[in-house]
Amino acid sequence: MITSTSNPRIKNLMQLQKKGKARREQQCFVVEGLKMVLEAPSERLKAIYMSENFSGDEEQKKAVEKKAAASGCFLEVLSDKVFKDASDTMTPQGVMAVVSMVSFDWQHLILQKSGSKRMILILESLQDPGNLGTILRTGEGAGIDGVILNRTSVDPYMPKVIRSTMGSIYRVPVAVAEDLAVVVSQLKTSGTRVYAAHLKGEKSYYEQDYLQDTCFMIGNEANGLSDALADMATDYIRIPMAGQVESLNAGVAAALLMYEAKRQRTTVN
Amino acid sequence: MITSTSNPRIKNLMQLQKKGKARREQQCFVVEGLKMVLEAPSERLKAIYMSENFSGDEEQKKAVEKKAAASGCFLEVLSDKVFKDASDTMTPQGVMAVVSMVSFDWQHLILQKSGSKRMILILESLQDPGNLGTILRTGEGAGIDGVILNRTSVDPYMPKVIRSTMGSIYRVPVAVAEDLAVVVSQLKTSGTRVYAAHLKGEKSYYEQDYLQDTCFMIGNEANGLSDALADMATDYIRIPMAGQVESLNAGVAAALLMYEAKRQRTTVN
Repeated sequence: MITSTSNPRIKNLMQLQKKGKARREQQCFVVEGLKMVLEAPSERLKAIYMSENFSGDEEQKKAVEKKAAASGCFLEVLSDKVFKDASDTMTPQGVMAVVSMVSFDWQHLILQKSGSKRMILILESLQDPGNLGTILRTGEGAGIDGVILNRTSVDPYMPKVIRSTMGSIYRVPVAVAEDLAVVVSQLKTSGTRVYAAHLKGEKSYYEQDYLQDTCFMIGNEANGLSDALADMATDYIRIPMAGQVESLNAGVAAALLMYEAKRQRTTVN
Repeated sequence: MITSTSNPRIKNLMQLQKKGKARREQQCFVVEGLKMVLEAPSERLKAIYMSENFSGDEEQKKAVEKKAAASGCFLEVLSDKVFKDASDTMTPQGVMAVVSMVSFDWQHLILQKSGSKRMILILESLQDPGNLGTILRTGEGAGIDGVILNRTSVDPYMPKVIRSTMGSIYRVPVAVAEDLAVVVSQLKTSGTRVYAAHLKGEKSYYEQDYLQDTCFMIGNEANGLSDALADMATDYIRIPMAGQVESLNAGVAAALLMYEAKRQRTTVN
């Protein structure tokens, strides 16, 4: 049992949660909680850590041990104090894991062809970890093909993002692009319609047709999309708002667009 | 200038932020930030507090002073340290205000007739303050008539809820009901269709018709709606989810339902 936070593994566990640089160098991130640990793809599991008094029952404990055995990663027990210190949550469930990242190249992501029409989401300088996590979760539900972020967006492997994804981080391809303008340009060349959620949009988002290859662009929470990127869109779309509402939460806006595309693709021939 | 947190007004300001009991007794709540203070209905403003080095510019400072004068409430300057101690945010903008609540009776709320068809949202035991705030904000945008909560839901006047509403707390009627079953029963008697967002729903939410008086029910983040309340619905509706997603964030689910009703009411005759 590890009883000190000066243990090198624990030090590294804390670094992986706090520092984007450590995550990028090691190409790993930390997940916490029973659901997140058990849903992790076995081949990507590097290590599992449990607290001395793991809060789950005997069956859940066995499931964790089985997971560790199946993936061939080591399972280490930490004293409750060390676990709490290493945890990013206020009331830890008592299990976390180190998982290796899968890097997606944005070019690969926008070129891959699934059977159905493509749906891509571009997020420009999104700042709130909870928003990004929620968007990945909703995106998986809406059947999105991938999310492309720029470097000034929040790091998708931050603990708070991971938590908010509720597991979707394992399944929704996420790519970071140096220059979103290049991405949009290539999407347009490939025949994808690129919609900018914008207050200047004349048509409501539900007056557009998303039956073709579609990309939605959502901007920063406070400032929206940059003019440079918005100008490259094939269409502006507006989310109509009653009352004195000036804008919607970015996670809500993304959800409305993605699910409208899903609705049209499900109900319209 | 107030330079001590033991000043009775400052003590009360802190109580109003921390204690639901204090808010209910005084029928007041605290808002923070320039936008929230300037948007507050003047007749409901009780007091405005500014920090010594208010972060806004001269024009914004004048706007706050004008607001205080127009509403006849006192404007008090606090030392930066006292302001920071009294503030609920990490990086305070340097202005907050005490605003009186408007109590809505749920019976009044569901009986009032606007020109158009009614849209009511019932939230059962919703726990996350950010979710509730986002729902009020989205609800105003979708043109909702009101939100009804039960007592085990998060207090709508908590600072974090208020912040997430971005001002909608002033404009969306919120009522707390002792027993949501009584509310649903009365809604049904009045001819309102009551939809339970539920995993057991057979029809997708976009396959229903929301052109009549409509109520949506959303449950607790972890457990959804209680069986007792869900059983009272006129219809179950399901939000279809691709991949391995088990549920959506409550704020996202509420947004999809309310905006689908708005879409139908806007685009369908």
